[in-house]
Formats: sequence, C-alpha cells, structure tokens
Amino acid sequence: MGIFNVELKKVVDDSYEIETGFGLKDKLIEDLKSGLVGDIKKFAIITDSIVENLYAKDIYEKILDSGFKADLFVFPEGEKSKVRKTKEDIEDAMLAKGYRRDCCIIAVGGGVVTDLAGFIAGTYGRGVPFINYATTLLAAADASVGGKTAVDTPLATNLIGLFNQPKKVYIDIETWKTLPKRQVYSGLAETIKHACLASADFFEYIDTHMHEILDFDAEVCSYIAEQNCSIKYKVVMKDERESGLREVLNLGHTVGRAIETVSDYKLLHGEALSVGMVAEVKLAYKLGYVSADERDRVIAILKKANLPVEIPEYIDREALVKKLYTDKKVKNGQLRFVIQKGIGDIVEYKEGVFAIPIEEEVAREIIMDM
Amino acid sequence: MGIFNVELKKVVDDSYEIETGFGLKDKLIEDLKSGLVGDIKKFAIITDSIVENLYAKDIYEKILDSGFKADLFVFPEGEKSKVRKTKEDIEDAMLAKGYRRDCCIIAVGGGVVTDLAGFIAGTYGRGVPFINYATTLLAAADASVGGKTAVDTPLATNLIGLFNQPKKVYIDIETWKTLPKRQVYSGLAETIKHACLASADFFEYIDTHMHEILDFDAEVCSYIAEQNCSIKYKVVMKDERESGLREVLNLGHTVGRAIETVSDYKLLHGEALSVGMVAEVKLAYKLGYVSADERDRVIAILKKANLPVEIPEYIDREALVKKLYTDKKVKNGQLRFVIQKGIGDIVEYKEGVFAIPIEEEVAREIIMDM
Repeated sequence: MGIFNVELKKVVDDSYEIETGFGLKDKLIEDLKSGLVGDIKKFAIITDSIVENLYAKDIYEKILDSGFKADLFVFPEGEKSKVRKTKEDIEDAMLAKGYRRDCCIIAVGGGVVTDLAGFIAGTYGRGVPFINYATTLLAAADASVGGKTAVDTPLATNLIGLFNQPKKVYIDIETWKTLPKRQVYSGLAETIKHACLASADFFEYIDTHMHEILDFDAEVCSYIAEQNCSIKYKVVMKDERESGLREVLNLGHTVGRAIETVSDYKLLHGEALSVGMVAEVKLAYKLGYVSADERDRVIAILKKANLPVEIPEYIDREALVKKLYTDKKVKNGQLRFVIQKGIGDIVEYKEGVFAIPIEEEVAREIIMDM
Repeated sequence: MGIFNVELKKVVDDSYEIETGFGLKDKLIEDLKSGLVGDIKKFAIITDSIVENLYAKDIYEKILDSGFKADLFVFPEGEKSKVRKTKEDIEDAMLAKGYRRDCCIIAVGGGVVTDLAGFIAGTYGRGVPFINYATTLLAAADASVGGKTAVDTPLATNLIGLFNQPKKVYIDIETWKTLPKRQVYSGLAETIKHACLASADFFEYIDTHMHEILDFDAEVCSYIAEQNCSIKYKVVMKDERESGLREVLNLGHTVGRAIETVSDYKLLHGEALSVGMVAEVKLAYKLGYVSADERDRVIAILKKANLPVEIPEYIDREALVKKLYTDKKVKNGQLRFVIQKGIGDIVEYKEGVFAIPIEEEVAREIIMDM
C-alpha cells in the first residue's frame, strides 16, 4: 500500500591512535583517567591463561588502584579458544558480574585475545568500546589495524565475526621478550607478508636486521611495528569493508588458513601462514609473476625467521585441497588466490580485483609437491 | 616510541525502504531480480517452524524458480529459540551448505526471526546483507525500524547483538490473518506502546478501530503499520545508537522484559510488555505524571486488545524485582525507568535523558500490588 523511506546517511568517525613503546601500562592508566573512553568506570579485562600473569593482572591492579572497577576474564591460551563457546562463556561471566552497556573491554594479549575480545565488544549490549593492549608481534602486525575480529568454527576460520574499531591500540614491545620463541617467529610471518606484498625496501630491511629483530632490539622492533601498521593502514584505508584491495592482505592465507585448520591448530597461525606463503610464491612463480630468484628469497627469509617452509608430513594433502574451498574468497565454487608480483607488489587481476581464479588442479599440483 | 594515527572518518549510508502491502512475495522476487542486493545469487532464507510452511517455502520456491540459489534454514518457533545456540546452528548449517560472503539472508517471520537473522547476517563473514519479510504485526511494529538485532542469554534478554540495518523491509499484511490470535494481540502491545509515548491521536485511533484491527481490515492495518514505522523512525533517526532519546522506546520494557524472562517465556513478548506497561503507567501515576483517568485508559486499551494486564499468579515477585537489575538501562547499580507523561508523551529527566532513576522500593511496591 505504500513505501516508507528510512533515511540513515551519516558521518562515522572511527579514528584511533596506535601507540608504540616500551612498557605502556602506566600510559594506558593515564589515558583512561583522562577520558579515553569517556566517563566509563567499569573495565572488563579479557586475556588468556599465559598473558594473565605476565601482564594482565598487573594492568588489572593498576586499574583498581586508580579507583575504577575491573574484572579479569581469562580463557585458556591458544587458537583453539578462538571459538563461539569462549565468547559465550566470557559474555555469561560478564553478565554474572553485572557488566551492562556502560563498560569498556580491554584486550590484553596476542591476536587470539584481540580478535575474540573485539568481537565480544562488538556484540555485548550491541556494542561497547574496546581497547587493544597488544603483547605479541603478531597482534602488532595483524590485529592493530583493520578492525577485523572473528572466531573460528569447525568448518571455517575467521568466518564469524565483525568489523570493529578499537578506541586505541597499545603496542608494548617490552612484552615481546617474554614470548616463547615459537610465538616470536610466528609473529614475523605477517611482517614478512606485509613486505612481500607492499615494499621491497622493507623486505630488505627485515632480511638484513633479522638478528636484531630476534634479539628485540628496541629501535629495530619499533621500526618493524610502525611499518606493519603503515602498510596495513594504507591498504585498509582504501578498502575498509574488504571488497577489493584489502584482499591483498590475504597473501599466503588461502593455503595458510587451510593448513592451520587441517593441522588442527598444531601449527601456529604464523607458521601455517609461512607454509602458505611458500605454496603461494611457488604458484606465483608457476604463473610467471615472480622469478626463481625472488621465489627463493621469499623462502629463504622465512627460514631465516625460523619458520617452517614445508607442509608437515602428517597433513593429508587431499584434505588440504578440499579445505581450500572454505576460503572466504571462493566465489561461485571457484578458488581464488592473491598472487605476489615480484617482491613488494601484488598482481591486479582486473581493476580493483586482486583475487585471481585458480584451477584446483594447479593448486593441487603445488600442494602435492610440497 | 611514537603514535600512529588511524584516520577512519567516512560517510555511511544505511538507508532502506519499508514496503507495506498485501501479498508482497512477487514484489520481493522482482526486487531481487532488479538488483536490490547487487549481483548476489545465493539466498539463505531463515525462518521458524511455523512460518516455514505458511510463507517461507513459497518464497524459497519462487526464488529457485527465478534461477537463484537458495536454502531454507528453519528453527523451532518461539522466543526460546532466540539464543546463541540457534545462531550457531544456523551458521554451521550455512557453512555446511557452502554459504560464504557472497550471499544474502532473507528473514521470513516475526520478531524472533528478524532479530535472530539480522544478528546472524551481521556476523556471518563479518557481515552479509539481509532483507526482512515481516509476517507479524509485532515485527512490523518493532523490528522494521531501528536495526536492533539480538539474542537472549540465561542472564538477560537482548543483551548480545548488534545494530544492523536491512536492505529492505516488507510488511505483508496478508500474513497477519494466519497468525494465532494470541500472536496478533501480542503484536498490538508495541503499537499501543508507540501511541502511549508519541501520539494521543494514534492512541485514539487504535482505541476506536480496535475491532477493524482485529478483523484485519486492509486500510486500518496499513495505517497502523505506517504509524508504527513513522513513530519509531522519528525517535530512532535522532538517536541511532540508543544513547538518549531512543530510550523512550523502552517504555514498559523494564518490567516487561523482566516478566518475560521470569515467566520463562510462557508469556509472549507483547503479553509481557502489556503487563510491563500497566506496571509502568501505575508508576507514572504514582509519580504524578499521568492522571488516574489516563492510567485507566491505558489499562483499558490493553484489555481491549485482549492483552493481560496483571502479573500472572505463578510469577515470583521477588525474583521479578531482582531481575529488573539485568535491564540495559541500569547504571551504577541504579534502576532506571522510562516514564509516560500523560498519553502521547514521555518525561524528559534532564536534557536528552529519558531514563529516570527509580528506587527499588518504589518499583517493588507496584509489583507487589499487581
């Protein structure tokens, strides 16, 4: 009988700061006191069982000392916790402690913590503000720009989630030192990916400074963190909803995510990504987009970072090929890959489209050979 | 060592149409064909076990006939299904059927279906478009404007969810006829609420046309649907994030939601709301904001719509008072109510604030007396 127009056009400002430094806990408290999240006085600190004692408890106590209310919500560390059940448990625990919409979530930890906490913040009371206190290189590289939050499900990784921007990100390099070595290497994978897709100079820098990086040299690590933000920012800014350009960040992830799942998370995200990057640089070589030398340099830098460059023995290759189809880039049943062009660039398939249709046979051949 | 600024200011346009009419299935198909959701060809139709056979199957077949892909995702009808588990089950079923980000969700049903489907759409692949095909008066009154989607949890109703705007809403009045009578009455509660908070004329109109409404008179029902959209729109437009003015829509809901939960959903949402409105108009009378006559007129119109106006015997009053604290409006442990001012207006507590702090004792007294 009629049409009613709902006009909902508006300006949204989700801008925020990323602060990099050594020991930023007191800075966080200072920011909360000076109104970073308005007049909110209740803070739900979400962390994992490892970071809890290393940093989160300390932050929790500092917040209490400042006269705010706070609680720690701790889940078992590891990618296996990045599931809907953990989200549900934390929500119920927050509800039980009386948290309503007048609270702020503070994520203290690596990528799993920031992904999960950001997702929880996005749907708690239909959205409460959140702050990321990133304690790993991976979180610094991957989770500080882009607003992607998600959980895994039995059938796909990162497919249930939302875009949600934090009020501020703290990258505390001091925390990297306490990471297990394997986590440090894993975190480097996203950094190397950023170099591969956007900057030959940065690739060179990582290659020559690998020793300092693994030694947590202050200046070098700061530079790395900054470059990660900067590269990701440039890509994300142009495509916040991940419709086109942003797909370049998926380099290495088509195979990487599939391996991560098929390995049942025995491989860390960065380790799986490393193997995925090797597979995909081999694909790029096969398609003529990188030279044999460039291919070998990518494999060499991953090795230098102590990352795996081969598909582990125990992985069922056929299951892996099948798993590729759970990738978000799949369209009408067709596999699509992001392909590296030399070092520091990405193949543009057609205007604004960076995911290239690849026949299953081509992908299978590379996987069978690894 | 430094601060990196992430600038994310942008214009967002979430505008959409609400189409009201008799028998809109073919119009929906027509719209899909002419690009309502771009070039998407896969449609996940989410519905409940009652609406499935009444309308959803028909829409499903029409979509298939048009050469699109589609699947039906059906959950057991009722508010008890509006939980995280149902969301999870539908997500897993969609993943198993190969749904990725290139799909659109169509919600066919009442408020529970549109709330749940809208929430699923908001987090599936970090957000896919969705369409609401509303088959109840309640969905027309409540779910077509405002973008609120959510699920219930053991500790609170509607606290986990997000704001998500549909691409289009269809209000098909033809479908109202097949509703169980109890559902029709329940749907009227939100309509009466809208009249109470915003329009004495509309209140008068409902009162005089109650018979035609319950007889599904075409013209009267269309007018009702339109007025619902219009009132809600005016409120929501001014306050999309529910920080101030939008709270007026919470009239009757502080007690209503608590009753709904404590009754373990034996009461339908509208029935619980009706009792909640009675409690809250009595509160308004006690506070001197409505006259005895206005109070009685509100109670009378609810009765006329065959809605309950008393707290059921089996409800534990103390549990009910306690449950009030799970309300979203609670701030720093203080109960807050939206209070009706006469008929057609709301008390403004202070500028832009419509939820008024109420002592537990005052609320308790009214509840104990009902």
